[in-house]
Amino acid sequence: MSSASLTELDARYHFARDVATAAASRAFSWYQQRQQLVVEHKKDPQDVVSEADRNVEQLIKYMITERFPDDAVLGEESGGDTQGARFVWVVDPIDGTSSFINGLHNWCVSLAIVCEDEAVIGVVCDPNHHELFHACRGKGAWVNDKRIQAHSAQQLNQGVLGISSSNSQPAEPLTSFISALLHQGGMFIRTGSGALMSAWAAAGRLIGYYEAHMNPWDGLPGIVLMREAGGVTNDYLHNDGLKNGNPVLLANATLYPQLKAMLPASFPL
Amino acid sequence: MSSASLTELDARYHFARDVATAAASRAFSWYQQRQQLVVEHKKDPQDVVSEADRNVEQLIKYMITERFPDDAVLGEESGGDTQGARFVWVVDPIDGTSSFINGLHNWCVSLAIVCEDEAVIGVVCDPNHHELFHACRGKGAWVNDKRIQAHSAQQLNQGVLGISSSNSQPAEPLTSFISALLHQGGMFIRTGSGALMSAWAAAGRLIGYYEAHMNPWDGLPGIVLMREAGGVTNDYLHNDGLKNGNPVLLANATLYPQLKAMLPASFPL
Repeated sequence: MSSASLTELDARYHFARDVATAAASRAFSWYQQRQQLVVEHKKDPQDVVSEADRNVEQLIKYMITERFPDDAVLGEESGGDTQGARFVWVVDPIDGTSSFINGLHNWCVSLAIVCEDEAVIGVVCDPNHHELFHACRGKGAWVNDKRIQAHSAQQLNQGVLGISSSNSQPAEPLTSFISALLHQGGMFIRTGSGALMSAWAAAGRLIGYYEAHMNPWDGLPGIVLMREAGGVTNDYLHNDGLKNGNPVLLANATLYPQLKAMLPASFPL
Repeated sequence: MSSASLTELDARYHFARDVATAAASRAFSWYQQRQQLVVEHKKDPQDVVSEADRNVEQLIKYMITERFPDDAVLGEESGGDTQGARFVWVVDPIDGTSSFINGLHNWCVSLAIVCEDEAVIGVVCDPNHHELFHACRGKGAWVNDKRIQAHSAQQLNQGVLGISSSNSQPAEPLTSFISALLHQGGMFIRTGSGALMSAWAAAGRLIGYYEAHMNPWDGLPGIVLMREAGGVTNDYLHNDGLKNGNPVLLANATLYPQLKAMLPASFPL
């Protein structure tokens, strides 16, 4: 466990919520004018970025650096140097950019803090639905001012699982997983925002969440939220996860092994 | 083409929007108290219904019957006798009940009107995002007061496809279809509300929509919306579709045959 003091954590937890709320408000203004956005493609045609992503990330970086100048910030769009920093903020200004530019309403601002190789704070802000999901080590998980907890399902057919994939991943493990899930009477959603579906899993709205590979800015908030919501997660940061990303599996203690058994044995846990 | 006069259609088109808006407002009130809802299972554990569905359907039926006593109303929850009626209203009070009871924000009120074996009016109301999608034969498709049109993509990798499935359908055709889509650089969402994803397809937010079987109350509104948005649809009402349901495939004229080619040859078109 990291040596971060309560005061150090509290200050950042409070501020992380302010930052996510301000960023979500800015992002929502862009969203209302999304027809005018200049959109570019990254690795493939499905991997998009807009000036809104860059502008919101700038705002987030500015706010954090001004308040905590010794902390590092690692952003999806502009990267960042984490070397030597005790606290690393990991930031996705808009998770679900494809949904955002297409007007699909399922996107969020996603933010986590890592201290000495431990994810200690996770925040997801969904301005379309006025929901701020937040968790800090030892303080439980919350949506706005309401405590949340993982789903109580004991079987996969008792609720809906969040899943995702990107075109940088091979298709077969995902389609095999979907097939196994459906054969057990399960059901899935894929909205386009992994961070937001992870938050929904922590809030017990989904029975869990699975993605074969997530970057830290999308994946880490859900890890903290689900742990503080009483659920189980994989060890996301192992094997240099902060740099390379890792799979993400979130569920309650009963369903976690059931879901894991449906995944390839190579799933690194 | 049905013989419905402009006056007959206009009166119903106007009223259908009023009904959907009133129903969506009622449904949204239930949604805000969803923790208190009594939920029952229908055919399988994933197929749920709540007192909200029944109450909203009652409201819709009451409004229609009072205004157009000779029209028939066919509802998801309470059925209805369509024998001999010239105009048949087809109603899903809450499409996406699973999303609704779980707090997933992606659900809608879905409504269509069939006149002499032709779907002439389609309305989808999404109260979470203040959007009313509506179309009437020959009058174009709209969201609120803004004209909408199908996506202009010429290739499957130029946007996101909506898909869905239910546990009453076999898993394999869907997973094979997802696999083929991903291999062509495509991507999908599944939000839990087929009617709402169909409306998003008509609005060009998705490149199209596919589901192996839809009931008329979920499927018909998207058929009208997509045709009026300049897109292509299958002949949903053929082979007694109003009674038995049918598959639904919606896309622009270029993508439609590409998607059809990825489906089993038995797809009835």
